[in-house]
Amino acid sequence: MTQKQKCVIVLSGGPDSAVVAYWAKKEGYDLYPITFNYGQIAVKETKAAEKIAESLGAKTKIVDLSALKGVFGDVTSLCNSEIPLTAEFSQPIIVPFRNAIFLSVAVSYAVSVGADRIFYGAHGSDEPFYPDCRREFYEAFEKTAQLGTGEHIIIQAPFSGKLKSEVIKKGAELGVPYEFTWSCYRDAEKHCGKCESCVNRKKAFQDSGIADPSKYDA
Amino acid sequence: MTQKQKCVIVLSGGPDSAVVAYWAKKEGYDLYPITFNYGQIAVKETKAAEKIAESLGAKTKIVDLSALKGVFGDVTSLCNSEIPLTAEFSQPIIVPFRNAIFLSVAVSYAVSVGADRIFYGAHGSDEPFYPDCRREFYEAFEKTAQLGTGEHIIIQAPFSGKLKSEVIKKGAELGVPYEFTWSCYRDAEKHCGKCESCVNRKKAFQDSGIADPSKYDA
Repeated sequence: MTQKQKCVIVLSGGPDSAVVAYWAKKEGYDLYPITFNYGQIAVKETKAAEKIAESLGAKTKIVDLSALKGVFGDVTSLCNSEIPLTAEFSQPIIVPFRNAIFLSVAVSYAVSVGADRIFYGAHGSDEPFYPDCRREFYEAFEKTAQLGTGEHIIIQAPFSGKLKSEVIKKGAELGVPYEFTWSCYRDAEKHCGKCESCVNRKKAFQDSGIADPSKYDA
Repeated sequence: MTQKQKCVIVLSGGPDSAVVAYWAKKEGYDLYPITFNYGQIAVKETKAAEKIAESLGAKTKIVDLSALKGVFGDVTSLCNSEIPLTAEFSQPIIVPFRNAIFLSVAVSYAVSVGADRIFYGAHGSDEPFYPDCRREFYEAFEKTAQLGTGEHIIIQAPFSGKLKSEVIKKGAELGVPYEFTWSCYRDAEKHCGKCESCVNRKKAFQDSGIADPSKYDA
Protein backbone atom coordinates (compact mmCIF):
# COMPACT_ATOMS: atom_id res chain seq x y z
CA MET A 1 0.00 0.00 0.00
CA THR A 2 1.36 3.41 -0.94
CA GLN A 3 1.88 5.80 1.89
CA LYS A 4 -0.45 8.77 1.84
CA GLN A 5 1.05 12.14 1.06
CA LYS A 6 1.30 14.39 4.09
CA CYS A 7 -0.11 17.90 4.16
CA VAL A 8 -0.20 20.59 6.83
CA ILE A 9 -3.49 22.44 7.23
CA VAL A 10 -3.79 25.77 8.98
CA LEU A 11 -6.94 25.01 10.95
CA SER A 12 -8.47 28.03 12.65
CA GLY A 13 -11.67 26.56 14.04
CA GLY A 14 -13.76 28.54 11.56
CA PRO A 15 -15.78 27.00 8.75
CA ASP A 16 -13.45 27.89 5.84
CA SER A 17 -10.41 25.99 7.05
CA ALA A 18 -12.68 23.14 8.22
CA VAL A 19 -13.85 22.76 4.62
CA VAL A 20 -10.21 22.79 3.47
CA ALA A 21 -9.44 19.97 5.92
CA TYR A 22 -12.39 17.89 4.75
CA TRP A 23 -11.44 18.58 1.13
CA ALA A 24 -7.84 17.47 1.78
CA LYS A 25 -9.03 14.30 3.49
CA LYS A 26 -11.19 13.50 0.47
CA GLU A 27 -8.24 14.20 -1.82
CA GLY A 28 -6.45 11.41 0.02
CA TYR A 29 -3.90 13.34 2.10
CA ASP A 30 -2.59 12.40 5.49
CA LEU A 31 -3.58 15.42 7.59
CA TYR A 32 -1.28 17.39 9.88
CA PRO A 33 -3.48 20.23 11.10
CA ILE A 34 -1.96 23.10 13.05
CA THR A 35 -3.86 25.69 15.11
CA PHE A 36 -2.64 28.95 16.60
CA ASN A 37 -3.43 30.75 19.76
CA TYR A 38 -2.17 34.21 18.84
CA GLY A 39 -3.70 36.09 21.73
CA GLN A 40 -7.11 36.38 20.09
CA ILE A 41 -10.09 37.11 22.32
CA ALA A 42 -11.93 34.18 20.73
CA VAL A 43 -9.92 31.39 22.34
CA LYS A 44 -12.93 29.21 21.61
CA GLU A 45 -11.54 28.90 18.08
CA THR A 46 -8.82 26.54 19.24
CA LYS A 47 -11.35 24.23 20.94
CA ALA A 48 -13.37 24.28 17.73
CA ALA A 49 -10.29 23.32 15.73
CA GLU A 50 -9.64 20.41 18.07
CA LYS A 51 -13.13 19.06 17.53
CA ILE A 52 -12.94 19.47 13.77
CA ALA A 53 -9.62 17.62 13.64
CA GLU A 54 -10.99 14.85 15.85
CA SER A 55 -14.00 14.48 13.56
CA LEU A 56 -11.47 13.70 10.82
CA GLY A 57 -9.57 11.21 12.93
CA ALA A 58 -6.67 13.67 13.23
CA LYS A 59 -5.16 15.68 16.03
CA THR A 60 -4.37 19.34 15.53
CA LYS A 61 -1.12 20.71 16.87
CA ILE A 62 -2.08 23.68 18.99
CA VAL A 63 0.72 26.21 19.17
CA ASP A 64 0.59 28.83 21.90
CA LEU A 65 1.83 32.04 20.34
CA SER A 66 -0.29 34.15 22.67
CA ALA A 67 2.72 36.37 23.39
CA LEU A 68 2.12 37.82 19.90
CA LYS A 69 -0.56 39.92 21.55
CA GLY A 70 2.37 42.00 22.77
CA VAL A 71 3.44 42.54 19.16
CA PHE A 72 0.20 43.64 17.52
CA GLY A 73 -2.23 43.96 20.45
CA ASP A 74 -2.22 47.75 20.21
CA VAL A 75 -3.63 47.76 16.69
CA THR A 76 -6.13 44.93 16.37
CA SER A 77 -9.60 44.56 17.84
CA LEU A 78 -9.26 40.77 17.59
CA CYS A 79 -6.82 40.76 20.51
CA ASN A 80 -7.73 43.96 22.31
CA SER A 81 -11.18 44.45 23.80
CA GLU A 82 -10.57 48.20 24.09
CA ILE A 83 -10.68 48.57 20.29
CA PRO A 84 -14.35 48.35 19.22
CA LEU A 85 -15.45 45.49 16.98
CA THR A 86 -17.36 46.56 13.89
CA ALA A 87 -20.00 44.76 11.85
CA GLU A 88 -18.34 45.80 8.61
CA PHE A 89 -14.73 45.44 7.63
CA SER A 90 -12.49 47.97 9.35
CA GLN A 91 -8.75 48.35 9.63
CA PRO A 92 -8.47 47.09 13.25
CA ILE A 93 -9.92 43.73 12.24
CA ILE A 94 -6.68 43.11 10.39
CA VAL A 95 -3.91 41.42 12.35
CA PRO A 96 -0.95 42.62 10.29
CA PHE A 97 0.68 39.80 8.32
CA ARG A 98 -1.11 37.18 10.41
CA ASN A 99 -1.35 34.60 7.67
CA ALA A 100 2.37 34.95 6.96
CA ILE A 101 3.17 34.21 10.60
CA PHE A 102 0.89 31.17 10.52
CA LEU A 103 2.20 29.96 7.17
CA SER A 104 5.83 30.40 8.28
CA VAL A 105 5.26 28.17 11.28
CA ALA A 106 3.27 25.78 9.10
CA VAL A 107 6.21 25.52 6.69
CA SER A 108 8.53 24.79 9.60
CA TYR A 109 6.11 22.12 10.77
CA ALA A 110 5.85 20.67 7.26
CA VAL A 111 9.64 20.36 6.98
CA SER A 112 9.76 18.81 10.46
CA VAL A 113 7.18 16.11 9.69
CA GLY A 114 8.15 15.56 6.05
CA ALA A 115 5.12 17.17 4.41
CA ASP A 116 5.62 19.09 1.19
CA ARG A 117 2.42 21.12 1.05
CA ILE A 118 0.38 23.48 3.16
CA PHE A 119 -3.28 24.27 2.66
CA TYR A 120 -5.05 27.27 4.13
CA GLY A 121 -8.56 28.63 4.00
CA ALA A 122 -8.21 31.93 2.13
CA HIS A 123 -11.05 32.49 -0.34
CA GLY A 124 -12.43 35.07 -2.69
CA SER A 125 -14.77 36.83 -0.26
CA ASP A 126 -11.82 37.78 1.95
CA GLU A 127 -9.48 38.77 -0.86
CA PRO A 128 -10.70 42.36 -1.32
CA PHE A 129 -10.12 43.12 2.37
CA TYR A 130 -7.22 40.96 3.52
CA PRO A 131 -4.04 41.22 1.49
CA ASP A 132 -2.68 37.99 2.98
CA CYS A 133 -5.63 36.05 1.58
CA ARG A 134 -4.78 36.91 -2.03
CA ARG A 135 -3.31 34.55 -4.57
CA GLU A 136 -0.38 36.86 -5.38
CA PHE A 137 0.50 36.86 -1.69
CA TYR A 138 0.55 33.11 -1.22
CA GLU A 139 2.33 32.54 -4.51
CA ALA A 140 5.07 34.92 -3.38
CA PHE A 141 5.06 33.17 -0.01
CA GLU A 142 5.47 29.79 -1.72
CA LYS A 143 8.54 31.05 -3.57
CA THR A 144 9.92 32.43 -0.30
CA ALA A 145 9.28 29.08 1.40
CA GLN A 146 11.14 27.22 -1.32
CA LEU A 147 14.09 29.62 -1.13
CA GLY A 148 14.11 29.64 2.66
CA THR A 149 14.03 25.88 3.13
CA GLY A 150 15.64 24.54 -0.03
CA GLU A 151 12.64 22.23 -0.38
CA HIS A 152 9.86 22.13 -2.92
CA ILE A 153 7.14 23.40 -0.56
CA ILE A 154 3.72 24.03 -2.06
CA ILE A 155 1.32 26.58 -0.54
CA GLN A 156 -2.23 26.41 -1.71
CA ALA A 157 -5.57 28.00 -0.88
CA PRO A 158 -7.86 25.52 -2.62
CA PHE A 159 -10.81 27.93 -2.52
CA SER A 160 -8.96 30.91 -3.84
CA GLY A 161 -11.32 33.05 -5.92
CA LYS A 162 -14.44 31.28 -4.62
CA LEU A 163 -17.11 33.05 -2.59
CA LYS A 164 -17.48 32.12 1.06
CA SER A 165 -20.99 30.86 0.26
CA GLU A 166 -19.53 28.47 -2.31
CA VAL A 167 -17.03 27.22 0.28
CA ILE A 168 -19.89 26.59 2.73
CA LYS A 169 -21.80 24.70 0.05
CA LYS A 170 -18.77 22.57 -0.76
CA GLY A 171 -18.33 21.82 2.94
CA ALA A 172 -21.92 20.65 3.22
CA GLU A 173 -21.30 18.18 0.37
CA LEU A 174 -18.17 16.97 2.17
CA GLY A 175 -20.02 16.49 5.47
CA VAL A 176 -18.26 19.23 7.47
CA PRO A 177 -19.76 19.31 11.00
CA TYR A 178 -20.52 23.03 11.02
CA GLU A 179 -21.86 22.76 14.56
CA PHE A 180 -18.22 22.44 15.71
CA THR A 181 -17.04 25.57 13.91
CA TRP A 182 -16.65 28.98 15.52
CA SER A 183 -16.55 32.31 13.65
CA CYS A 184 -17.26 34.99 16.24
CA TYR A 185 -14.48 37.40 17.24
CA ARG A 186 -15.94 37.41 20.75
CA ASP A 187 -15.76 34.52 23.16
CA ALA A 188 -19.29 34.27 24.56
CA GLU A 189 -21.46 31.16 24.80
CA LYS A 190 -23.18 31.90 21.48
CA HIS A 191 -21.99 33.69 18.34
CA CYS A 192 -22.62 37.42 18.88
CA GLY A 193 -24.15 37.75 15.42
CA LYS A 194 -22.95 41.33 15.09
CA CYS A 195 -19.21 41.33 14.47
CA GLU A 196 -17.86 41.32 10.92
CA SER A 197 -17.06 37.62 11.13
CA CYS A 198 -20.54 36.66 12.35
CA VAL A 199 -22.12 38.87 9.69
CA ASN A 200 -20.05 37.19 6.97
CA ARG A 201 -20.86 33.75 8.31
CA LYS A 202 -24.59 34.40 8.43
CA LYS A 203 -24.60 35.85 4.93
CA ALA A 204 -22.58 32.96 3.49
CA PHE A 205 -24.90 30.34 4.97
CA GLN A 206 -27.94 32.26 3.75
CA ASP A 207 -26.51 32.66 0.25
CA SER A 208 -25.55 28.99 0.06
CA GLY A 209 -28.96 27.76 1.20
CA ILE A 210 -27.30 25.61 3.88
CA ALA A 211 -28.69 25.66 7.42
CA ASP A 212 -26.32 27.21 9.96
CA PRO A 213 -26.40 25.18 13.17
CA SER A 214 -24.85 28.02 15.22
CA LYS A 215 -26.78 29.83 17.88
CA TYR A 216 -26.63 33.61 17.65
CA ASP A 217 -27.23 36.26 20.25
CA ALA A 218 -28.53 38.67 17.63
CA MET B 1 13.45 68.65 14.16
CA THR B 2 12.58 65.83 11.78
CA GLN B 3 11.38 62.65 13.39
CA LYS B 4 13.77 59.74 13.03
CA GLN B 5 12.76 56.89 10.75
CA LYS B 6 11.76 53.79 12.65
CA CYS B 7 13.27 50.38 11.96
CA VAL B 8 12.71 46.96 13.46
CA ILE B 9 15.82 44.92 14.18
CA VAL B 10 15.78 41.18 14.72
CA LEU B 11 18.17 41.07 17.65
CA SER B 12 19.28 37.58 18.62
CA GLY B 13 21.86 38.33 21.29
CA GLY B 14 24.67 37.18 19.01
CA PRO B 15 27.35 39.48 17.60
CA ASP B 16 26.03 39.72 14.02
CA SER B 17 22.67 41.27 14.86
CA ALA B 18 24.35 43.44 17.52
CA VAL B 19 26.50 44.93 14.75
CA VAL B 20 23.37 45.48 12.66
CA ALA B 21 21.76 47.35 15.57
CA TYR B 22 24.83 49.56 16.07
CA TRP B 23 25.01 50.16 12.33
CA ALA B 24 21.32 51.18 12.23
CA LYS B 25 21.81 53.52 15.15
CA LYS B 26 24.70 55.17 13.36
CA GLU B 27 22.60 55.45 10.20
CA GLY B 28 20.21 57.55 12.27
CA TYR B 29 17.28 55.18 12.73
CA ASP B 30 14.96 54.99 15.70
CA LEU B 31 15.45 51.38 16.85
CA TYR B 32 12.68 48.89 17.58
CA PRO B 33 14.57 45.70 18.37
CA ILE B 34 12.69 42.41 18.72
CA THR B 35 14.04 39.20 20.26
CA PHE B 36 12.60 35.70 20.14
CA ASN B 37 12.53 32.91 22.60
CA TYR B 38 11.77 30.02 20.25
CA GLY B 39 12.46 27.20 22.68
CA GLN B 40 16.23 27.31 22.11
CA ILE B 41 18.46 25.73 24.73
CA ALA B 42 20.55 28.91 24.81
CA VAL B 43 18.00 31.09 26.60
CA LYS B 44 20.96 33.24 27.55
CA GLU B 45 20.66 34.77 24.09
CA THR B 46 17.60 36.76 25.12
CA LYS B 47 19.39 38.24 28.15
CA ALA B 48 22.27 39.16 25.86
CA ALA B 49 19.86 40.88 23.48
CA GLU B 50 18.40 42.87 26.35
CA LYS B 51 21.84 44.13 27.35
CA ILE B 52 22.78 45.02 23.78
CA ALA B 53 19.55 46.97 23.32
CA GLU B 54 20.07 48.78 26.62
CA SER B 55 23.60 49.72 25.58
CA LEU B 56 21.95 51.50 22.64
CA GLY B 57 19.38 53.25 24.79
CA ALA B 58 16.66 51.00 23.40
CA LYS B 59 14.49 48.23 24.79
CA THR B 60 14.08 45.01 22.90
CA LYS B 61 10.64 43.45 22.69
CA ILE B 62 11.09 39.88 23.87
CA VAL B 63 8.49 37.59 22.37
CA ASP B 64 7.95 34.21 23.98
CA LEU B 65 7.39 31.78 21.15
CA SER B 66 8.83 28.91 23.15
CA ALA B 67 5.87 26.74 22.17
CA LEU B 68 7.55 26.49 18.75
CA LYS B 69 9.71 23.83 20.32
CA GLY B 70 6.66 21.61 19.86
CA VAL B 71 6.73 22.38 16.12
CA PHE B 72 10.38 21.70 15.25
CA GLY B 73 11.84 20.30 18.48
CA ASP B 74 12.10 16.82 16.98
CA VAL B 75 14.48 17.91 14.25
CA THR B 76 16.82 20.55 15.62
CA SER B 77 19.67 20.23 18.07
CA LEU B 78 19.23 23.89 19.03
CA CYS B 79 16.04 23.07 20.92
CA ASN B 80 16.54 19.40 21.75
CA SER B 81 19.42 18.26 23.91
CA GLU B 82 18.94 14.67 22.75
CA ILE B 83 20.18 15.59 19.27
CA PRO B 84 23.98 15.96 19.44
CA LEU B 85 25.55 19.34 18.72
CA THR B 86 28.33 19.27 16.16
CA ALA B 87 31.37 21.49 15.70
CA GLU B 88 30.79 21.67 11.97
CA PHE B 89 27.62 22.55 10.15
CA SER B 90 25.10 19.71 10.19
CA GLN B 91 21.46 19.45 9.21
CA PRO B 92 20.07 19.45 12.79
CA ILE B 93 21.58 22.87 13.44
CA ILE B 94 19.00 24.24 11.04
CA VAL B 95 15.70 25.32 12.55
CA PRO B 96 13.56 25.02 9.45
CA PHE B 97 12.41 28.42 8.14
CA ARG B 98 13.38 30.11 11.41
CA ASN B 99 14.26 33.45 9.88
CA ALA B 100 10.95 33.52 8.04
CA ILE B 101 9.08 33.05 11.31
CA PHE B 102 11.13 35.82 12.92
CA LEU B 103 10.79 38.15 9.93
CA SER B 104 7.02 37.56 9.72
CA VAL B 105 6.58 38.62 13.32
CA ALA B 106 9.00 41.49 12.74
CA VAL B 107 6.89 42.69 9.81
CA SER B 108 3.78 42.52 11.98
CA TYR B 109 5.61 44.53 14.63
CA ALA B 110 6.80 47.05 12.04
CA VAL B 111 3.26 47.63 10.79
CA SER B 112 2.04 47.94 14.39
CA VAL B 113 4.59 50.60 15.36
CA GLY B 114 4.70 52.37 11.99
CA ALA B 115 8.15 51.26 10.88
CA ASP B 116 8.73 50.56 7.21
CA ARG B 117 11.93 48.51 7.36
CA ILE B 118 13.38 45.49 9.04
CA PHE B 119 17.07 44.72 9.40
CA TYR B 120 18.47 41.31 10.23
CA GLY B 121 21.92 39.89 10.69
CA ALA B 122 22.29 37.43 7.83
CA HIS B 123 25.77 37.58 6.26
CA GLY B 124 27.92 35.86 3.69
CA SER B 125 29.53 33.28 5.97
CA ASP B 126 26.10 31.79 6.78
CA GLU B 127 24.76 31.92 3.25
CA PRO B 128 26.24 28.64 1.99
CA PHE B 129 24.65 26.73 4.86
CA TYR B 130 21.43 28.53 5.78
CA PRO B 131 19.00 29.12 2.92
CA ASP B 132 17.09 31.73 4.95
CA CYS B 133 20.23 33.87 5.18
CA ARG B 134 20.52 34.32 1.42
CA ARG B 135 19.72 37.46 -0.49
CA GLU B 136 17.30 35.70 -2.85
CA PHE B 137 15.36 34.51 0.20
CA TYR B 138 14.99 37.89 1.84
CA GLU B 139 14.23 39.62 -1.42
CA ALA B 140 11.40 37.13 -2.00
CA PHE B 141 10.33 37.67 1.59
CA GLU B 142 10.28 41.43 1.06
CA LYS B 143 7.95 41.03 -1.90
CA THR B 144 5.75 38.71 0.16
CA ALA B 145 5.69 41.25 2.99
CA GLN B 146 4.62 44.01 0.62
CA LEU B 147 1.87 41.86 -0.87
CA GLY B 148 0.74 40.56 2.51
CA THR B 149 0.47 43.94 4.21
CA GLY B 150 -0.20 46.34 1.35
CA GLU B 151 2.64 48.47 2.69
CA HIS B 152 6.05 49.27 1.28
CA ILE B 153 8.00 47.15 3.75
CA ILE B 154 11.75 46.88 3.21
CA ILE B 155 13.71 43.85 4.41
CA GLN B 156 17.45 44.22 4.47
CA ALA B 157 20.47 42.29 5.66
CA PRO B 158 23.05 45.08 5.60
CA PHE B 159 25.97 42.62 5.76
CA SER B 160 24.72 40.34 3.03
CA GLY B 161 27.71 38.90 1.16
CA LYS B 162 30.21 39.98 3.82
CA LEU B 163 32.26 37.50 5.83
CA LYS B 164 31.48 37.13 9.51
CA SER B 165 35.00 38.41 10.26
CA GLU B 166 34.23 41.59 8.31
CA VAL B 167 31.03 42.03 10.32
CA ILE B 168 33.01 41.66 13.56
CA LYS B 169 35.52 44.23 12.35
CA LYS B 170 32.77 46.67 11.45
CA GLY B 171 31.22 46.15 14.88
CA ALA B 172 34.51 46.97 16.59
CA GLU B 173 34.61 50.27 14.67
CA LEU B 174 31.04 50.97 15.78
CA GLY B 175 31.81 50.22 19.43
CA VAL B 176 29.70 47.07 19.80
CA PRO B 177 30.10 45.75 23.37
CA TYR B 178 31.01 42.20 22.37
CA GLU B 179 31.24 41.21 26.02
CA PHE B 180 27.42 41.30 26.10
CA THR B 181 26.97 39.02 23.09
CA TRP B 182 26.31 35.29 23.27
CA SER B 183 26.92 32.80 20.46
CA CYS B 184 26.96 29.36 22.08
CA TYR B 185 24.15 26.89 21.36
CA ARG B 186 24.51 25.65 24.92
CA ASP B 187 23.48 27.58 28.01
CA ALA B 188 26.43 27.18 30.37
CA GLU B 189 28.27 29.88 32.28
CA LYS B 190 30.92 30.21 29.55
CA HIS B 191 30.81 29.66 25.80
CA CYS B 192 31.45 25.94 25.21
CA GLY B 193 33.94 26.71 22.44
CA LYS B 194 33.08 23.49 20.61
CA CYS B 195 29.68 23.90 18.97
CA GLU B 196 29.42 25.17 15.39
CA SER B 197 28.41 28.62 16.57
CA CYS B 198 31.33 28.94 19.00
CA VAL B 199 33.73 27.66 16.34
CA ASN B 200 32.46 30.27 13.87
CA ARG B 201 32.66 33.01 16.46
CA LYS B 202 36.23 32.16 17.45
CA LYS B 203 37.33 31.95 13.83
CA ALA B 204 35.67 35.27 12.92
CA PHE B 205 37.32 37.12 15.80
CA GLN B 206 40.68 35.55 14.95
CA ASP B 207 40.37 36.43 11.25
CA SER B 208 39.32 39.99 12.04
CA GLY B 209 42.16 40.59 14.48
CA ILE B 210 39.70 41.80 17.11
CA ALA B 211 39.98 40.50 20.67
CA ASP B 212 37.06 38.30 21.71
CA PRO B 213 36.10 39.16 25.31
CA SER B 214 34.15 35.87 25.74
CA LYS B 215 35.30 33.18 28.08
CA TYR B 216 35.44 29.72 26.57
CA ASP B 217 35.38 26.32 28.19
CA ALA B 218 37.50 24.88 25.41
